[in-house]
Order: sequence, then C-alpha cells, then structure tokens
Amino acid sequence: MSRRVTGPEIDRLIQLLARLPGLGPRSARRAALQLVKKKDQLLRPLAEAMTVAADNVTTCRTCGNVDTHDPCTVCTDPRRDESVIVVVEDVSDLWALERSNAINARYHVLGGTLSPLDGIGPDDLNIAGLVERVAAGGVKEVILAVNATVDGQTTAHYVTDRLQGLGVAVSRLAHGVPVGGELDYLDEGTLAAAIRSRTPF
Amino acid sequence: MSRRVTGPEIDRLIQLLARLPGLGPRSARRAALQLVKKKDQLLRPLAEAMTVAADNVTTCRTCGNVDTHDPCTVCTDPRRDESVIVVVEDVSDLWALERSNAINARYHVLGGTLSPLDGIGPDDLNIAGLVERVAAGGVKEVILAVNATVDGQTTAHYVTDRLQGLGVAVSRLAHGVPVGGELDYLDEGTLAAAIRSRTPF
Repeated sequence: MSRRVTGPEIDRLIQLLARLPGLGPRSARRAALQLVKKKDQLLRPLAEAMTVAADNVTTCRTCGNVDTHDPCTVCTDPRRDESVIVVVEDVSDLWALERSNAINARYHVLGGTLSPLDGIGPDDLNIAGLVERVAAGGVKEVILAVNATVDGQTTAHYVTDRLQGLGVAVSRLAHGVPVGGELDYLDEGTLAAAIRSRTPF
Repeated sequence: MSRRVTGPEIDRLIQLLARLPGLGPRSARRAALQLVKKKDQLLRPLAEAMTVAADNVTTCRTCGNVDTHDPCTVCTDPRRDESVIVVVEDVSDLWALERSNAINARYHVLGGTLSPLDGIGPDDLNIAGLVERVAAGGVKEVILAVNATVDGQTTAHYVTDRLQGLGVAVSRLAHGVPVGGELDYLDEGTLAAAIRSRTPF
C-alpha cells in the first residue's frame, strides 16, 4: 500500500498469504481482512492449526507421503494391499488418487520428474527408495501413475528400466477420453490413444 | 477424503483454509500441501504472523478501521487533512481508496449498508459515531464513498439526512465511465450518468 493504513503486522500477514497457491495480492488482502474480522472464529484457530501442523508434519521415509507420523497412515494401514505400489510424482497425486477410491494399495512419491533441462536427474528423485522397496520382496505390481507429460513419460521409462529383473509387473495408467469429456474439445493424441485402446461394448 | 491418507491435523488445516475467501476445497488442499512442504519458509512464519495479528488486531473506535492500535494509523497520522471524512461501507473500501492515492483525509467505516430486507437498520451501522465526529467540529466536508448499489445509495441518503444542520458539506463519488472502460460493455445507467455529468474537454 502506498501510504500506511494499518500496522506492519497486517501487511506481513498479507505478504505471506499472497505466497499461497491460488491467492494473488488482491485475494490475499481479502483473506487477511476476513481473518482479522473473524479473529476468534477463523484467525486464531487457523494460527493454531498451522502451528500444530508445523510441529508435527513430516515426510514418510518409506513412501514420501506427508503426514504427522513416520511411517505414514498409508504405509501403516493393514487393510491395504501390500503387493501393489502406485508410483506418483507428487503428494498431491497420491491424495487425488485416494479421493477417487480407485485402488487400495501402497504408494511411492518420486518427488518430481526427470527433467534434464531443469537439471533434475535420477538422484534428485526418490527412485532408489522404490527399487529398494521392490527388491525387499512382497511387491507383485508397480503402477506408474505419473502425469501424461513428456517429462512424466520419460520418468516412467527410466523407472521401468530400473525395476527390470526384480520380478515385478510394471503397468501404467490408461490413456483415453476423460469421463464427461467431449470429443470435440480433446486433442488428437488423446483421441488416437482412445481409439487404439478401445474396448468391447 | 474417503480414506485417511494423513493425520487429522492436516485435514483440519485444509478445512480452515477452505473458509478463506478465494479458496475452495481444491485450492485449500493445494495450499495446505504447499504449506507443509515449505514448513520453515512459509508454514511457520504464517502461523506466527497469524498469532501476532490475532493478539494485536483491534478495531479503531474512532473510524472503524482495523489496525494493531486504537486509534488507528489513519486517525493518528498528522499529515492527513482532518477537515475531510471519507465515509465507506467496509474496511476493504478504505484500503482500496488508499491504494488509489486519491485523497489524504480521514475515514469513517459504516460497517455495511442499510438493508431493511436483511434487518440491518441505522443502529446496526456506525452512523452515530460519524454524527458525533462531525458534531465535535473541525470537519468541513463528508465524502460519501459508498457502493453505487441500491442499498449503498439508500444509506448515502440516510447519512446525508442525519448530517443536516451540522454545517458540513456532503458530497458523493462521481458516476461515469470507468478508466479503461469500453462504452459498448457499459450499462445504460452508467452511460446516462456519464452524459449527464459530462465535463468540458
């Protein structure tokens, strides 16, 4: 703000809020104002929830999920199929797959994709940890649930190579028309993949 | 989430973040993930900034601005013209006007608009405080910077009535074409107002 209308404490709150994904400077101001107006219902509980999270959140050394204990909730859940590991790029992908309720298995978070242009090589991702888990035995299938981008697919190929000889089946997500998708709006690559992988009706 | 993938601490953080304006459930999850990934750079500083704000923020008893001291930064700034009070509906309007750098005066936050349908009458707004400030003397002009809505204009008329006889000039914001606005996209009311209030070129 050009001239000062509030104390520096509120300016600092706005600056930090603006660093959250999805909030720009304008919405950070709105959020800050909402917070200070609802001091006891929102600002204080949120401050406490953040302190609790900061004090407790850690990365699971087994799968890379974020949780308040290590090994994480997913790795310690006895009702999950231990013989299947779903490999994802990011924790957000793990959460997305869990919301879909599509599979009841373990996960492995790589922490990104191979990207030579950005200087990200195999040692920057948690690939060694995956190989170790598979080599330890008990894993029958590894599902590569990486993004359908060039970097994602490069990473998928590299991971497949590294798992060669460990006696594990490697699969990847199907390509095709998104549920609810309209053909007219889809790119040629997706349509071609959907035709190639067509199924009996 | 359907199945639990993280501890309840992170779920609570997501729930509270989703109550911020501009963040839905999806962006609240992204924000929470970003926060726990950047624990020391973002989560902890934000938690501290929120605690500091919660402990210190108060509403100015003179003008209704939110600040960390009362009277607020605006009311105690000696470089501002004390003879002009800009009346706004909300603190966010005060901040918006300050960003525009259009005027260097005092403010008065009403805290809403008269709205019989919502059961908001004169006693629910800080109108008495404004009358008191004007009656105390030293104020030459009151600028009604309320929204150009029906409720805003009703409130402006009511406030003007209440200031009658106190020897203060009452003005309102000009109506017209927004800077950068295209005539084709403007409503008839705005265009008519812009014609009526045309100025020599």
